[in-house]
Amino acid sequence: MQILRSLNLLGVLWLLACAALIPDLSGQTSRQLAEGWEFYRGGLGSTWEIWRGEQASDNVPWAPVTLPHCYNARDAVDPDARYYQGPAWYRTRLQVDNPYAGGRTLLHFDGVGQRARVYVGRELAGEHVGGYDGWTVDLTEAVVRARGGAEKTSSVPLAVGCDNSRDAETLPSDLSDFTRYGGLYRHVTLEYVPAISLERVHVTARLAPDGTAHVEVAGRMRNPRALSDETDIRIEVFDPQGRRVAKHSKPHAPGSGEAALAAFDLASPQLWSPRTPSLYRCLVTLKSRHGEQVVQERFGVRTFEWVEHGPFKLNGERLLLRGSHYHEDHAGVGAAVPDEVVRQTLRAMKDMGANFVRLGHYQQAPLVLEMCDELGLLVWEEIPWCRGGLGGPAYRKQAREMLANMIDQHRNHASVMLWGLGNENDWPGDFEIFEKAEIRAFMQELNALAHQLDPTRKTTIRRCDFCKDVVDVYSPSIWAGWYRGRYTEYRKSTEREIAATPRFFHAEYGGDSHAGRHAEEPEKFLGEITTGQGTEEIGKAYKNQGGEARASRDGDWSESYIVNLFDWHLKEQEQMPDLTGAAQWVFKDFATPLRPENPVPYVNQKGVLERDGTPKESYYLFQSYWADAPMLHIYGHTWPVRWGKVNEEKLVKVFSNCAEVELFLNGVSAGVRRRDSADFPAAGLRWKVRFLEGENRLSAKARRDGREIEDAVTFSYQTAVWGKPARLELREISRRDAVVLIEARVFDANGVACLDAAQTVRFGLAGDGRLLDNLGTAKGSRVVQFANGRARIEVELAGSAVASVQCAGLPTEFVVLKR
Amino acid sequence: MQILRSLNLLGVLWLLACAALIPDLSGQTSRQLAEGWEFYRGGLGSTWEIWRGEQASDNVPWAPVTLPHCYNARDAVDPDARYYQGPAWYRTRLQVDNPYAGGRTLLHFDGVGQRARVYVGRELAGEHVGGYDGWTVDLTEAVVRARGGAEKTSSVPLAVGCDNSRDAETLPSDLSDFTRYGGLYRHVTLEYVPAISLERVHVTARLAPDGTAHVEVAGRMRNPRALSDETDIRIEVFDPQGRRVAKHSKPHAPGSGEAALAAFDLASPQLWSPRTPSLYRCLVTLKSRHGEQVVQERFGVRTFEWVEHGPFKLNGERLLLRGSHYHEDHAGVGAAVPDEVVRQTLRAMKDMGANFVRLGHYQQAPLVLEMCDELGLLVWEEIPWCRGGLGGPAYRKQAREMLANMIDQHRNHASVMLWGLGNENDWPGDFEIFEKAEIRAFMQELNALAHQLDPTRKTTIRRCDFCKDVVDVYSPSIWAGWYRGRYTEYRKSTEREIAATPRFFHAEYGGDSHAGRHAEEPEKFLGEITTGQGTEEIGKAYKNQGGEARASRDGDWSESYIVNLFDWHLKEQEQMPDLTGAAQWVFKDFATPLRPENPVPYVNQKGVLERDGTPKESYYLFQSYWADAPMLHIYGHTWPVRWGKVNEEKLVKVFSNCAEVELFLNGVSAGVRRRDSADFPAAGLRWKVRFLEGENRLSAKARRDGREIEDAVTFSYQTAVWGKPARLELREISRRDAVVLIEARVFDANGVACLDAAQTVRFGLAGDGRLLDNLGTAKGSRVVQFANGRARIEVELAGSAVASVQCAGLPTEFVVLKR
Repeated sequence: MQILRSLNLLGVLWLLACAALIPDLSGQTSRQLAEGWEFYRGGLGSTWEIWRGEQASDNVPWAPVTLPHCYNARDAVDPDARYYQGPAWYRTRLQVDNPYAGGRTLLHFDGVGQRARVYVGRELAGEHVGGYDGWTVDLTEAVVRARGGAEKTSSVPLAVGCDNSRDAETLPSDLSDFTRYGGLYRHVTLEYVPAISLERVHVTARLAPDGTAHVEVAGRMRNPRALSDETDIRIEVFDPQGRRVAKHSKPHAPGSGEAALAAFDLASPQLWSPRTPSLYRCLVTLKSRHGEQVVQERFGVRTFEWVEHGPFKLNGERLLLRGSHYHEDHAGVGAAVPDEVVRQTLRAMKDMGANFVRLGHYQQAPLVLEMCDELGLLVWEEIPWCRGGLGGPAYRKQAREMLANMIDQHRNHASVMLWGLGNENDWPGDFEIFEKAEIRAFMQELNALAHQLDPTRKTTIRRCDFCKDVVDVYSPSIWAGWYRGRYTEYRKSTEREIAATPRFFHAEYGGDSHAGRHAEEPEKFLGEITTGQGTEEIGKAYKNQGGEARASRDGDWSESYIVNLFDWHLKEQEQMPDLTGAAQWVFKDFATPLRPENPVPYVNQKGVLERDGTPKESYYLFQSYWADAPMLHIYGHTWPVRWGKVNEEKLVKVFSNCAEVELFLNGVSAGVRRRDSADFPAAGLRWKVRFLEGENRLSAKARRDGREIEDAVTFSYQTAVWGKPARLELREISRRDAVVLIEARVFDANGVACLDAAQTVRFGLAGDGRLLDNLGTAKGSRVVQFANGRARIEVELAGSAVASVQCAGLPTEFVVLKR
Repeated sequence: MQILRSLNLLGVLWLLACAALIPDLSGQTSRQLAEGWEFYRGGLGSTWEIWRGEQASDNVPWAPVTLPHCYNARDAVDPDARYYQGPAWYRTRLQVDNPYAGGRTLLHFDGVGQRARVYVGRELAGEHVGGYDGWTVDLTEAVVRARGGAEKTSSVPLAVGCDNSRDAETLPSDLSDFTRYGGLYRHVTLEYVPAISLERVHVTARLAPDGTAHVEVAGRMRNPRALSDETDIRIEVFDPQGRRVAKHSKPHAPGSGEAALAAFDLASPQLWSPRTPSLYRCLVTLKSRHGEQVVQERFGVRTFEWVEHGPFKLNGERLLLRGSHYHEDHAGVGAAVPDEVVRQTLRAMKDMGANFVRLGHYQQAPLVLEMCDELGLLVWEEIPWCRGGLGGPAYRKQAREMLANMIDQHRNHASVMLWGLGNENDWPGDFEIFEKAEIRAFMQELNALAHQLDPTRKTTIRRCDFCKDVVDVYSPSIWAGWYRGRYTEYRKSTEREIAATPRFFHAEYGGDSHAGRHAEEPEKFLGEITTGQGTEEIGKAYKNQGGEARASRDGDWSESYIVNLFDWHLKEQEQMPDLTGAAQWVFKDFATPLRPENPVPYVNQKGVLERDGTPKESYYLFQSYWADAPMLHIYGHTWPVRWGKVNEEKLVKVFSNCAEVELFLNGVSAGVRRRDSADFPAAGLRWKVRFLEGENRLSAKARRDGREIEDAVTFSYQTAVWGKPARLELREISRRDAVVLIEARVFDANGVACLDAAQTVRFGLAGDGRLLDNLGTAKGSRVVQFANGRARIEVELAGSAVASVQCAGLPTEFVVLKR
């Protein structure tokens, strides 16, 4: 049961804050089932095959795994194979020891990709369609049957069949730009509750004009045997400092449906906001003759206001929503992102200065929401009605249930401000018939359902103009400078949409960048050199092109270009008083089946972090606009060789939130620049300097909040002009323990490094070791595009090996690696 | 429709025999659909996904293929991955131009793995469960609907969804020792017939005691619109020389079910036998106002007699059935064995001297049966009720239908003598409950059904003692010298079974041998050296061991051992007057999911040919006992280095069917030996000689049928004794065009070749090229065991590459390969 589970997950966090106040009940009543599982990827001929074991010698290999586990952890980004979409099985033996006499034994799944069936022995105990909402199976009776006459302490066989097969009559569509992962990729928890228990507790806090918060607590009972015993329910509320601020207790007759449990006022509530994410805690204790259960929920007090045509106000004050997007996806693990990585990632988002995140494009794991609550990240959460059109009855049923479950399960979260009903629902393809009117009607139905279930939040969608008036808040598609037009058109497009949309929000802007790829002339695809030019010039450059060049198709996918794009967007956003906010797409690179041709195949590279969490340069650009903590970052830490003419003035940019920055080239000051965010690019923190041929060192210094900070970067400057690529070089760069980093470089016939080479290369390995590939990162894919004529991969070496690099039209090169 | 299709398939063959006699009607009435298909391996979300094409950008890659096509062509023997068991799709656009006004348009499948659905556009036009029987879909109405108002000549979209997913409620079981292949792995034919046509023609020939053959022709009509037009049916029969020997013509009212069409006598029929496979031809011409259809069937006249407790008589004379087994499986293509390879394989079986083949373990392609008819190979054909137990209603329905279809479709074949109802039905595992009584009852039901459908053939099964009395002919399991006991026990076991079984046949004997692996002491695992010893000595050797050693587990899997085993069996078979016959398992190595640990992983290596058709030494051993054409083969053509002491007497064996053979060592006669098949081994054609250290040449000469034949082999003789393997060597052996053969060898610390090394090695490749692997042969698998300290693989080289070889405990070696 989620609520109990929440208690346990939060237990640790909470204990840090107020160790003495909460009794730790988790050990007895619930347990995460991480260990002791076996996994088999493939279909089974029958449920008997799960358990027959040594009774048959077949080709079903079960292997031990630890949960969470995603069975597309690697193949989602395999350049040579499509990711597996089909059935797979998990099995374990479950120790069941319910402390409650007559209690219920529940198995709770935080989310399973994409449909699942749960078996106790061969008995189907429960099933679920949909890969993202939490669900619970009551195992109580099945456990008794499975044990037969055996000891109460004997373990019971438990299996879960997962399936992420293509199925147009389920959500999300396979036309979605993300992997439809399979597996038990979120936590699975065994929970014990009394025969009568709380299934769900909802806490709703409303702030009255007089500054009082009115709090209502409601609950839904789990009472499958329809027992009539009266229960006693005690409710305690603790303020963010852990002081009890309310207490209620009353008898409660178990009924069906949700019932009010308590209501009370908080006179001067501490408001939740990104800056002060103050969380109250509500402890609900249910007692009956069947036992006692304690449920904990956190909540916050805050108000949202969407001024028509902008801006957005939180707790009565304008807040520019500075957002990004989060996909549950990580290098090497797919959707089974470890808790610690979730925490790191969301902290990194907070450190970037974001105050908003859209959880695209599905309900996410409890921990994600808990982190947003704690960090102060406002949330747009949505159901995966994403692309493809609208299916039949089963499809619609799933959509409704996913929406209802999302709201039921996540509505207590202080961070949640928007319920998303869909994404790109104007995108046809999954059905022979695409009826706008039907889609609109279904959107209206979902919209009504969301409001009915949660009157306190607004609904929203992104990109479906013919439904824009259905939902409360709407984001059209504006991808200025990427999928269309120039980024300099961003403001015009956005202001037009603000004027045309009562409650406008801008979800998704940005573009792909290949980590480690930099350009002296990132806008060259527009037909002229624009490095370091101001606004007007770039506008003109675009006009001269007749607006036909498209960065997503014609651009160089460099970090340099995307930094300019973001720089422009952030500059403009600061200057738009009616803008509610905008969310950059996407915080981290992630896997997608739709992009095999990308520099890192099958990876959407629009992240400001790589898929393994490594920041790209754009992360620092965002920080320089948004972060409070002092920061300073010279552009180009991953750019080892810059190029140009002898004595040519070259642009150096520094991303910093400090008022003044001084730059030094090879120890000599190049002057101080003052930050002015209206002065594109780099908010005026840019210099024109002349590099030495060969090695150079740049350093920069600034002060903020009384702290001096600095950054430095060394690189080469190449004046030799290169011709056509003629040969490759492959060599070892570094090693740590058994992991060797190798690098391929490309040179012209005269041996001059080709610094803008962007061809695709393929790494191979023979002998004792393996490429650390299928990670979906610039140095973790055996097929990858050059970044400035370089490509890297790591090798886990077990003895002697020979690595190869191939590039069309060039002789293949090898390097011998020995331990 | 199969019958028309038969006409076409046979057209070419027949024209060779009697070009002028048959009008070629095939061009107009049927067409094999080999070209113009696209394939996608994976599931689809809906039938709309088949056709939406550019209307959606998803991750469904369709690739052109030619039929027949098996989608486990390579992965069935991939050492690192399990073979794909799941859905896959084929699609094409069909040109339909039916020459018959109002005629039927049929799509005939010779066999599809393992279940299939046929779609015209998105309309389900037909489906079938079972991977081996032929089936037909009537597309007529669906084609009209698909065309809608379009031109009659417009093409129609056709798709076939295949599925070989595990499913315990279908046959065969995944516990079967062969791959449950998927795909359109046999021919697909588009057929046009008139509105009233013949669906099936059966010809039954019975030989009367007076030597007259009584022939009955029966037919089943296809008349889906229940038209009442009278038809005229003309029947012509041609003798094996193409002379018309019978003619009948009569009106026929179309009814349902099978009806007699004609009966006639052949006064002095030419009898079909392995030596003279005389085939009659029956031409049936149906005429109605809807058009004319010509169907051709071949048949033979012969009698089978199973004398109780033996022997077997064909046409009144004893015939010792000398058999092997055939699986539809070939290197690089899986089940989609090209027609030419089928022909070569069955001709090779005939050339080996076989007169019998068990088609294990399923109904096979029409061409297989046609070849058996023509070559004179008596056939045991069976349904794939193979291992696992007995399923429920769907399972039983499929079994019944497969049996009925097999008999319906193949009963005209002169070669077929036995209908097999099952294999190893005493093998449990697929179901929680294994009830012998139920299996027995179902076996009785199938037995009755077979007799009802075809009273002229006997039924049979192999290995299910508790059903042995149900069927007419029974083969117990006797694997003397392999899975149990010593091969010297073969006769005793067999004679015991002959006595205990009214109609005994011995299906399956033999064992695995790794091609290229030879042994000086192949029976060493029994505890003493037995090379060249006679019967008694070996018997003693076994006794000394207490009968505990088991060759399948403890033996060396050498060709040397298996040649001894076969040699013994063949010697004994010649001396058993009551033996009906025996069939060696199996003619060719084939893929199986159950044997990942074999020397060639996932290959059942019991063949006398490798999986690509290359003969092992045992093929020649069989020839020496069975073949008529003169042959001579010195054992050891693939044994480049023999070993022993200086001046030690070493055994040389020659396999020959000649009466006398003279052997020469390095040009000097070692004497003449007379063939005596009672003199084990090699029927007395063996010599003890002293090899020179280093290079030696053996040659042998013999005469038969006035022809002189000879054979020669060169090899090295090594006297140096080797120690523990210490290092590998990897080098190029040969190349033809871009294909390079590389060989790994293993040496001890002193550089002495380890000639009995049998470890597993793994080849790898980096750079421009690919290993020609996943072929399931000794030189076509990247993981393979050494054969006498050698392992080979071919590399298709596209530029520069480095190949590696790894072997546990030894340093990995590399070889540079350049074009």
